Amino acid sequence: MFLAKVFVSLKPTVNDPQGLTIRGGLHSLGFSGVKQVRAGKYIEVTLDGEDLEAAQEQVSEMCRQLLANPVIEQFRFEVEEAPTPQSSAD
Amino acid sequence: MFLAKVFVSLKPTVNDPQGLTIRGGLHSLGFSGVKQVRAGKYIEVTLDGEDLEAAQEQVSEMCRQLLANPVIEQFRFEVEEAPTPQSSAD
Repeated sequence: MFLAKVFVSLKPTVNDPQGLTIRGGLHSLGFSGVKQVRAGKYIEVTLDGEDLEAAQEQVSEMCRQLLANPVIEQFRFEVEEAPTPQSSAD
Repeated sequence: MFLAKVFVSLKPTVNDPQGLTIRGGLHSLGFSGVKQVRAGKYIEVTLDGEDLEAAQEQVSEMCRQLLANPVIEQFRFEVEEAPTPQSSAD
């Protein structure tokens, strides 16, 4: 079992109204040192796979096909081995 | 200048319809090994600060006040020193 952490963010040249809104909110709250905010997505995918390399390839393909929009977004990810759940743990 | 990478995700006990939808989409695309998907937010904040510790405290406070909803979300973040931009670089 593997756990993939996927980070999807807008390409630097793409306008980010959500980030601008968050920055405005932070300024209103008194965080005047904030220069820039970029908003993106963080997706955790738990998947079965033969080995780490196969899992990484799968995740890369998922990003390309569904998780990120290659026209305006960029992505990066980390895959780590996750313990197979034996019983439900909180 | 500091760069904070903030990861906001739903608490494990909270229902995640967005994650379920993504999992359904991945299954439809043939990624049958996907067991679970959790969707969250990834926010990059560029901020001024006296030192790393002060910046970390600021970011922690931002998360508590605006970036995360403490009732249903959890957050973690990393702060690293970022080079002050001398000129606009692509």
